[in-house]
Amino acid sequence: MNIIKGGVTAAKGFYAAGVYAGIKKKRKDMALVYSGVPAKGAGTFTTNVVKAAPVKWDIKLTKESEHIQAVVLNSGVANACTGSQGELNNRQMAEAVAQALNIPVTSVYTASTGVIGKQLPMDVIKNGVKLLAQSLSDDIEAGTLAAEAIMTTDTYAKECAVSFTVGGKEVVLGGMAKGSGMIHPNMATMLGVITTDLAISKELLQEALSADVKKSFNMISVDRDTSTNDSLLILANGLAGNEEIKEKNEDYDKFCEALNYVTTQLAKMLAADGEGATKLLEATIVGAKTEEEAAILAKSIISSNLVKSAVYGSDANWGRILCAMGYSGADFDPDKVDLYIESSEGKLKLVENGVACDYSEEFATKILSAKEVKAIADLKAGNATATAWGCDLTYDYVKINADYRS
Amino acid sequence: MNIIKGGVTAAKGFYAAGVYAGIKKKRKDMALVYSGVPAKGAGTFTTNVVKAAPVKWDIKLTKESEHIQAVVLNSGVANACTGSQGELNNRQMAEAVAQALNIPVTSVYTASTGVIGKQLPMDVIKNGVKLLAQSLSDDIEAGTLAAEAIMTTDTYAKECAVSFTVGGKEVVLGGMAKGSGMIHPNMATMLGVITTDLAISKELLQEALSADVKKSFNMISVDRDTSTNDSLLILANGLAGNEEIKEKNEDYDKFCEALNYVTTQLAKMLAADGEGATKLLEATIVGAKTEEEAAILAKSIISSNLVKSAVYGSDANWGRILCAMGYSGADFDPDKVDLYIESSEGKLKLVENGVACDYSEEFATKILSAKEVKAIADLKAGNATATAWGCDLTYDYVKINADYRS
Repeated sequence: MNIIKGGVTAAKGFYAAGVYAGIKKKRKDMALVYSGVPAKGAGTFTTNVVKAAPVKWDIKLTKESEHIQAVVLNSGVANACTGSQGELNNRQMAEAVAQALNIPVTSVYTASTGVIGKQLPMDVIKNGVKLLAQSLSDDIEAGTLAAEAIMTTDTYAKECAVSFTVGGKEVVLGGMAKGSGMIHPNMATMLGVITTDLAISKELLQEALSADVKKSFNMISVDRDTSTNDSLLILANGLAGNEEIKEKNEDYDKFCEALNYVTTQLAKMLAADGEGATKLLEATIVGAKTEEEAAILAKSIISSNLVKSAVYGSDANWGRILCAMGYSGADFDPDKVDLYIESSEGKLKLVENGVACDYSEEFATKILSAKEVKAIADLKAGNATATAWGCDLTYDYVKINADYRS
Repeated sequence: MNIIKGGVTAAKGFYAAGVYAGIKKKRKDMALVYSGVPAKGAGTFTTNVVKAAPVKWDIKLTKESEHIQAVVLNSGVANACTGSQGELNNRQMAEAVAQALNIPVTSVYTASTGVIGKQLPMDVIKNGVKLLAQSLSDDIEAGTLAAEAIMTTDTYAKECAVSFTVGGKEVVLGGMAKGSGMIHPNMATMLGVITTDLAISKELLQEALSADVKKSFNMISVDRDTSTNDSLLILANGLAGNEEIKEKNEDYDKFCEALNYVTTQLAKMLAADGEGATKLLEATIVGAKTEEEAAILAKSIISSNLVKSAVYGSDANWGRILCAMGYSGADFDPDKVDLYIESSEGKLKLVENGVACDYSEEFATKILSAKEVKAIADLKAGNATATAWGCDLTYDYVKINADYRS
């Protein structure tokens, strides 16, 4: 597997565009991803009971449509809590794309992000779709424009791509995502689009994606708020020319590995670029009885406001880490836990068998002052492991969210 | 029921003291509550797997001791994650009290709050116990000194007391509590002590307390972090002279009503005085199918970082409230929800049947600018209701917790 440049336009036959349509005040606000040929589509979506109109639409398409050929996305308005008018508007957005590209409306995924409760401005949307269709390009830069257009409070566009070989054919897989606030994915993240020219059955594509998010996007949190719009979509158009993957063989494993690399990189970018964040916080549980329990514990650590505030202050307040593990719901013996912190500055054992070691506070602070810090807890109860990613809690998180809408 | 002045010394036969022993740098750090006669004791404790040494001790006493006569409390050091040395130190703290007051060690509850992972300074503690025993008084002011001595980042002491009549006898019930950070009680709160001169069986005392916390302390959150030290203790010494309550009769109901008034007032004070808080946020669910679901929904609203940040900014970003209800795990129909905000400035309907009303943003901001703000969601699915209390999320929460230990 090679890491390559680009995002959603890295794979063969994928085009993209990102434009300023006028939903937001100044910044780009609409994006389109298009496959020149019909592709297999799969998706994972928010578990929030309150689901945005585009989420409901995509869930229906994922079940019923044999092929997906385009994804239209907008930022600025989430089209959530908008009732039947919101569902109608969403369908019209998909129809506008279907008309512009001359493809069935049932092959157009939609995704929205932004303020909840506002209706989409349909004149602006329809005009935006025209602009998008005219701007489509398979250049690497077109993928970046699309990644920029789905940003809300993100400070940079998130893209990642890899190439790998299946049956002698080079396959490319790339993606984009946006995150920042209301990030506590449960079955998916805020918005993510993955494209690949791999040939694979629809069933296996969905199975691979559903399994993958458990280790990637579902393992990050910015603020424990699971959004109404979480959607991770994948399109596979088969243009790599490999024999279609129809069973869980070695080729399937290669695909899963590439997918996991791209989704994990994007997920980590979302965590590191969480609203107001200055640091990436990684928590790893080792020596757990089961992967499920390890995941619950790791996610509880990176979700704790108290842990996140201490990381912001570079304060090795390890009691908060054990406390967050303790209320997670997972079963473990606190009197067996060893706890380490690690960064580019070094590694340090803080706790042995549940009790503080005689460590240097100065060195601990130095380790925690790095841009990427890790906490590693060894439960000494088994061989299972899991990693989760979050960010620190800062003044700027509060500032951004105290007056988000103005 | 009458609301009266005082806290843990309001009821007959209860003495208290609060002193500076030297655990913290400057402020009072040890408290003692003492009943002149043996009392019935009950308690509810943290569900965190990581339990502090005093919590383990109190759980044992609650099961095994027929009578409880004293509660010794310290702030500054939590005596959590301190291993067998921590358990020995805790026992020695109880023994010092037993010796000073000439009562059995098994009748002395202990409670600690402060930094996790540090051992108690036993010379300081033992000297503190002597000071406490010498300072015991049944004055109202002695109760206040005790309430002050258990504070950590609390900005004021929390006390409440009421009187009511049982079988022609006047009964008094009063309490104190401390909270501020690491507040997301689950079966109890950080630290709380209730005293009453009521005569009641141990079984009913425990049953009343366990039922009560579900509606009071378990319905508040500052930061979703369930502490290692949560303990709510109650002592009933029978000096009111009523016939001992041994069944769930009218007298028992009167007691439960008085208990709920005091615990709810204390719980609301904890929420309003959450770390960095400038506002009390109250969320009420009405029209729910069950009380359990109403409670889950109310608590999810007041726990959301995004809702809390919006309240800080007086921003009527109601989508975040519906979003927090949506990911709570409770089942409801988002398309039926009506949502209101209310404060001393007035009441306003923001959402009808899940969709935004045409309301005045200016008036919404005015309502949310008050010191106590309410969100009320009507699910229109039944008759059950529940209320939860939290606070806004501010720069100061981050500031306090970025460097708590220095």
